[in-house]
Amino acid sequence: MVDIATRVHNHKWKIDPIVRSLIDTDFYKLLMCQSVFRNNPETRVTFSLINRSKTIRLAEMIDEGELREQLDHVRSLSLSRGESTWLRGNTFYGKRQMFRPDFMEWFENLRLPPYHLEKVDGQYELTFEGSWPEVMLWEIPALSILMELRSRAVTGDMGKFELQVLYARAMTRVWEKVEQLKPLTGLKIADFGTRRRHSYLWQDWCVQAMTEGLGHKFSGTSNCLIAMKRDLEAVGTNAHELPMIYAALADDDAALRQSPYDVLADWQDEHEGNLRIILPDTYGTQGFLNGAPDWLAGWTGIRIDSGDPATGAETAIKWWTERGEDPTQKLVIFSDGLDTAKIIELHTQFAGRVKTSFGWGTLLTNDFRGLTDGDSLAPFSIVCKAVEANGRPTVKLSDNPNKAMGPAEEIARYKRVFGVGEQVAMDVVV
Amino acid sequence: MVDIATRVHNHKWKIDPIVRSLIDTDFYKLLMCQSVFRNNPETRVTFSLINRSKTIRLAEMIDEGELREQLDHVRSLSLSRGESTWLRGNTFYGKRQMFRPDFMEWFENLRLPPYHLEKVDGQYELTFEGSWPEVMLWEIPALSILMELRSRAVTGDMGKFELQVLYARAMTRVWEKVEQLKPLTGLKIADFGTRRRHSYLWQDWCVQAMTEGLGHKFSGTSNCLIAMKRDLEAVGTNAHELPMIYAALADDDAALRQSPYDVLADWQDEHEGNLRIILPDTYGTQGFLNGAPDWLAGWTGIRIDSGDPATGAETAIKWWTERGEDPTQKLVIFSDGLDTAKIIELHTQFAGRVKTSFGWGTLLTNDFRGLTDGDSLAPFSIVCKAVEANGRPTVKLSDNPNKAMGPAEEIARYKRVFGVGEQVAMDVVV
Repeated sequence: MVDIATRVHNHKWKIDPIVRSLIDTDFYKLLMCQSVFRNNPETRVTFSLINRSKTIRLAEMIDEGELREQLDHVRSLSLSRGESTWLRGNTFYGKRQMFRPDFMEWFENLRLPPYHLEKVDGQYELTFEGSWPEVMLWEIPALSILMELRSRAVTGDMGKFELQVLYARAMTRVWEKVEQLKPLTGLKIADFGTRRRHSYLWQDWCVQAMTEGLGHKFSGTSNCLIAMKRDLEAVGTNAHELPMIYAALADDDAALRQSPYDVLADWQDEHEGNLRIILPDTYGTQGFLNGAPDWLAGWTGIRIDSGDPATGAETAIKWWTERGEDPTQKLVIFSDGLDTAKIIELHTQFAGRVKTSFGWGTLLTNDFRGLTDGDSLAPFSIVCKAVEANGRPTVKLSDNPNKAMGPAEEIARYKRVFGVGEQVAMDVVV
Repeated sequence: MVDIATRVHNHKWKIDPIVRSLIDTDFYKLLMCQSVFRNNPETRVTFSLINRSKTIRLAEMIDEGELREQLDHVRSLSLSRGESTWLRGNTFYGKRQMFRPDFMEWFENLRLPPYHLEKVDGQYELTFEGSWPEVMLWEIPALSILMELRSRAVTGDMGKFELQVLYARAMTRVWEKVEQLKPLTGLKIADFGTRRRHSYLWQDWCVQAMTEGLGHKFSGTSNCLIAMKRDLEAVGTNAHELPMIYAALADDDAALRQSPYDVLADWQDEHEGNLRIILPDTYGTQGFLNGAPDWLAGWTGIRIDSGDPATGAETAIKWWTERGEDPTQKLVIFSDGLDTAKIIELHTQFAGRVKTSFGWGTLLTNDFRGLTDGDSLAPFSIVCKAVEANGRPTVKLSDNPNKAMGPAEEIARYKRVFGVGEQVAMDVVV
């Protein structure tokens, strides 16, 4: 029986919205947003979309009108009552009322600020300006809209069964990955794939497949909407935007050198336990750890998001040992460009030496490599980053010079201040 | 929106019926049924299920109660008005009113006769006795019920996503086959996979995938219900049951020797063009052709359903040439245990020498080989055959002694009468 009302209702959609909820975003964005709302609500920032994969000429594939419709739709969204109730009442990382009432009241009234969109040389220049806590919430929807519009552009002229087989192949691939991971004793793995997912529905499928296939080894998803809908843990801690903006706001070299620790001091005020995870690579992991105050060694763990992951973990283990901490009680979260082979390798390599967990991103939620002619659905490397704070440019060095960003003279200054020397360049696939 | 009425209605199903229509059967059964209805309506026959794959212990996998429910459901079916209209009004093989009014009136009032079911040594003994035109219509539903109940037994304890990936893998496999066949110039291929399909929905999916993937190279399906629903050609001509029963009814050796030609004389009275297809292998192809009357050489083509298919086609080409016919104007239909490699080989080998077409059965609609542990969904060889007519046993020799059936002394007599000597045995996979 056709439900006529549903059918008629569906006719009324002017577009098929990609982002349908303000919590279709990464959990850590909300944690960081609350922190920024408390500590830096007046800071003016600019976020900008950067397509690192220049050969993917997005402005030639994606219609500007459609892109604007999708972005405008996000601006029409506000937190629903159920979403608000879930954020206010749910337990995150074992804690009730993770989100404070003043933050929730602000969030309930939030609409995302305007965007600026231009076509330049086959790419979209998409920027967001305004107060930090508002603008920062554009990052994930902007990325997932661009990714999914590209998926739609490629799949637009495929036949019904061709499409079904495309997804059949992609499902088979995800399931084969799940089957490879299933035997790993003590594995803890989470979905970190919102930003560069193939599509919302596909991410939701991948998460459910992980849930059935891996059971308790699947520890949750960074996507709040999916966590809420699928009754899963929402996971994530903090990201580079905090040290990048704190650094940009620093008035001199001494303040700059101190800024990454200021970030974590603020964080320590707010969070404990498994939320005390160091992200050390913004201006070079080795220098960061060498200069770190002792209280940081007491934190729960570290997230390795650039450079060679095994080297990063060894560096952390050595640092904890030097600071009199027991590495076997510490957590290393790997989250950079993971796929099964690397996950299995790292899990095996560090078993018994340190606790590990894995934040699996694009190659979980967007591994369509080789499934279409010309590899037209292969994931690509797109980011949306803070590029300016209170009029000053931001800088990221990273443990991989291919992930560095910022004006050349500022990069040079930061390298001097943070004592970053020779670095090993690694390809950035996703 | 949930359609509440649909949901409530679905609660009322006592079972999930496998066969939901009397035309969920092969087109040739209906053509033959009409012929039998005209020429032999009073003949009493027994059809019997024969599982050639003894290691598949069906009675241990399939609950007897469920099997009875499914068979009982088939006995509750009658032709719907729309099905009747389609059979009466549709064009089959370019001909209107293929089914005569007297046959249609009989068919509209038909309910299938009782069945006899017993468990013997891990297998089901399932037999049908009664008048030939009624009993013969049990063959396809009986087989497809057994096949699908076995699929359900195997998939019964699989998880939701495990199941989805199972079908994803099977879809990918069918699509890869379609992609292999697509480049073949002049290919004509039809679905003959009703009887040993994985399930009804799966056959329906395969047919639709073939339609999208192969376009006009896909010439139709033997399944009347799917042909009607998907607006495709219903295809098929005649089968071994006609010569087997005509032979059993023969009163002496001379009449026996003549019986296969009597079948085709009756057929010629009713059909022309692409329905004049010889099925020569019931009692040995070579002997059949040697003794055939000249008018048979004028028929449109031949169907090769046992023995080495290339040898069978060469035998036919030689025979047509000897009888002064132009083989390039003749049609060879291959239908025995086909899969893509063999289809491509035969298509290539006979291109330009004879017209070819392919009736693709079990390895189209039930190729789940290797997709489950213990290969528990691999297709197996089950048939439902006329074993008796008016109290006399039937015999089939075939061009492959592994497909022969009947009492040993009768087989010996038939071999003598039809002059069948040494035969090459070939494995029967499906």
